[in-house]
Amino acid sequence: MVNVAILGFGTVGSGVAEVMEENAISIAHNALEKIKVKRIVDVRDFPDSPFSEMITRDFSLVENDPDIKVVVETIGGAGVAYDYTKRSLLAGKSVVTSNKELVATHGHELLSIAKEKNVNYLFEASVGGGIPIIRPITQCLTANELDEVYGILNGTTNYILSQMVQGNVTFEEVLKDAQRLGYAEADPTADIEGYDAARKICILADLCFGKSVDPNKISISGIRGVTAQDVEYARRLGYKIKLLGRAYRLDGEHITAYVSPHLISKTSLLSNVDGVMNGIVVHGNALGEAMFYGAGAGKRPTASAVVADVIDAVKHMQARKYLGWEESEDGYVVDAADIKMRWYLRTGSGLEDIGRAFGNVRLISYPGDYPGAGPDEYAFATEPITGRELERMLSGMDVRSMFRILD
Amino acid sequence: MVNVAILGFGTVGSGVAEVMEENAISIAHNALEKIKVKRIVDVRDFPDSPFSEMITRDFSLVENDPDIKVVVETIGGAGVAYDYTKRSLLAGKSVVTSNKELVATHGHELLSIAKEKNVNYLFEASVGGGIPIIRPITQCLTANELDEVYGILNGTTNYILSQMVQGNVTFEEVLKDAQRLGYAEADPTADIEGYDAARKICILADLCFGKSVDPNKISISGIRGVTAQDVEYARRLGYKIKLLGRAYRLDGEHITAYVSPHLISKTSLLSNVDGVMNGIVVHGNALGEAMFYGAGAGKRPTASAVVADVIDAVKHMQARKYLGWEESEDGYVVDAADIKMRWYLRTGSGLEDIGRAFGNVRLISYPGDYPGAGPDEYAFATEPITGRELERMLSGMDVRSMFRILD
Repeated sequence: MVNVAILGFGTVGSGVAEVMEENAISIAHNALEKIKVKRIVDVRDFPDSPFSEMITRDFSLVENDPDIKVVVETIGGAGVAYDYTKRSLLAGKSVVTSNKELVATHGHELLSIAKEKNVNYLFEASVGGGIPIIRPITQCLTANELDEVYGILNGTTNYILSQMVQGNVTFEEVLKDAQRLGYAEADPTADIEGYDAARKICILADLCFGKSVDPNKISISGIRGVTAQDVEYARRLGYKIKLLGRAYRLDGEHITAYVSPHLISKTSLLSNVDGVMNGIVVHGNALGEAMFYGAGAGKRPTASAVVADVIDAVKHMQARKYLGWEESEDGYVVDAADIKMRWYLRTGSGLEDIGRAFGNVRLISYPGDYPGAGPDEYAFATEPITGRELERMLSGMDVRSMFRILD
Repeated sequence: MVNVAILGFGTVGSGVAEVMEENAISIAHNALEKIKVKRIVDVRDFPDSPFSEMITRDFSLVENDPDIKVVVETIGGAGVAYDYTKRSLLAGKSVVTSNKELVATHGHELLSIAKEKNVNYLFEASVGGGIPIIRPITQCLTANELDEVYGILNGTTNYILSQMVQGNVTFEEVLKDAQRLGYAEADPTADIEGYDAARKICILADLCFGKSVDPNKISISGIRGVTAQDVEYARRLGYKIKLLGRAYRLDGEHITAYVSPHLISKTSLLSNVDGVMNGIVVHGNALGEAMFYGAGAGKRPTASAVVADVIDAVKHMQARKYLGWEESEDGYVVDAADIKMRWYLRTGSGLEDIGRAFGNVRLISYPGDYPGAGPDEYAFATEPITGRELERMLSGMDVRSMFRILD
């Protein structure tokens, strides 16, 4: 039998305890060993929880217990979680986590410590919640040179954009609704502004391209600027607006990574990933394209991925998994502003200004039936051009929206 | 360095050799060892192939070479392939294959031999071509009780049905077209009649539910009976017609598995999997639903999965992977004819006959603009009912089409 500790008894942590109890028999069958939660560390009390007896505030009870071989870190953030993870690994325990912030910012270091101590640091749940994606990339696509990874990595923003597409409602209206339904947090900043998606695309880029990408250094823009008019203009062009994290190889030595709303073609499968669901596309030189779809968050889906990692850690007690990436040198990540793409533009400037800046453009027909859109407003798609160049061409113009087009 | 042999130098086998050469550096990086093709066994000569020097007809040169640790079987079928696979395993070599027929019919035995000899028998490429699906099920979803797996498992039939939906063309026209384009074989029986999909759904059922399901004993119907009228009636009902392999748990002790055309809702992601692509949905009690999408066949995508297995075999030279399932007892698989579902029916019988058999039904409006559809024809969806019961109710009636509806 293998004993496990859970650090952080919030949504995911309690889901892990639940799933491990509920599916104990099949889990033991798959792990070839019984797995038991021995301790749960949390600063709060949970007198009514069926697990209340094993809950403690004292992490050292885990750290110093040689009987606990696997630690589940579901605290979140890069503070206490970082400290406890490091100490657990140094104590010779494998650590399993859903903590994207920690993996994105300290993954390289923590994986190095795990390697040194011959234990595992596993994080399938950190990207795409319950969707298998880390293991497919690191184990199933190993025959490929991977050149691109992108996707809908945040369920909250995808829910909001999907509702806007379906219902002609404003961002603010849907956000309130999403908060009421529990799809968005009281402070939705990390989701709305794209930080959550940024952490995830950096982890994917780390794994796909082998070098560390710092989420604090990539270009990130969220969905706050997406309006009902943009959604409608995009529709008329045959596109949907989705928040994508995207990373791809520019040449042998460089990649780019960024988060930004995109217009994506309605004929693409990814554009049909709606609501709180996530979809991740990976492109390799042998495989072509594959997509992975499922619940990107939520108590039980996330627990599904965490517990699968626990099982894997138990099966690999003597054999470390081959996960890791190198530190990257300066200049490895090229600023997304230097990448050529087509852009969707909505502007309050007149046709003369548009013509002066862009020559002949084909305007998207005006969605007159949409509230707030004035007859003095124009929208169109540009030729491929870098964001930097575009900013220059737009100087002095009244720009209302400006989003990338994924072709 | 690890030496590999390839048995069968057809489309997939030559793709494996190509990808291993092209991506040699990253493959060595991922496997932590260089991997080299030492011999290729085929009854044909390939004087113009860059690999011609290592091609032989003599399998014993592989069987008796202790230097060859991994054998790639891409012969296909369950004849010679079965013999060579068995002998390779017995000689202490790991075997990797894309051969769904062999895995579906002899998987249990071959995996048992592999276990006994402490080597691996891996078959990621046998289902879904390049799509990671075997490993996600066996390693990423281990925390779940899996209750259902289904999907579009055959690219040829999906191409044909997609074309019929898009182009209002007949089955025969599209089939000819598909053969010209290389999407269908000269003898398309295994695809069209659903045998290929049956092998794949049986392998998925073996893995998801842990017991052997024989593709020769499940209910299989192909797409030959799908007409342009059916496609149009389905569209009017909000559905698309797709050939699905499907298996699910009925209770702790029984499952069902079958292959059949289904009407699936246009709002489902799977209904948007078009052309030669495959999509596989897995449902677990913690995860909910996940879908895996990509190229289900083709030289390089299939090679991508085979070579990933080779890498895995090389990394697990001393440690067998945990793959396998038990023999099943009689009665484990319940006949699909005993499963209650809604059905789509198209009949040349009159309204009186329909009313007598089904009571009040809601007819799907008549697609008058479609060739061949007569005004004497009716289509409608039934209430949930078993296929067996339905056959009884339809006795004496003129039934033109009858397909399951996936709700």
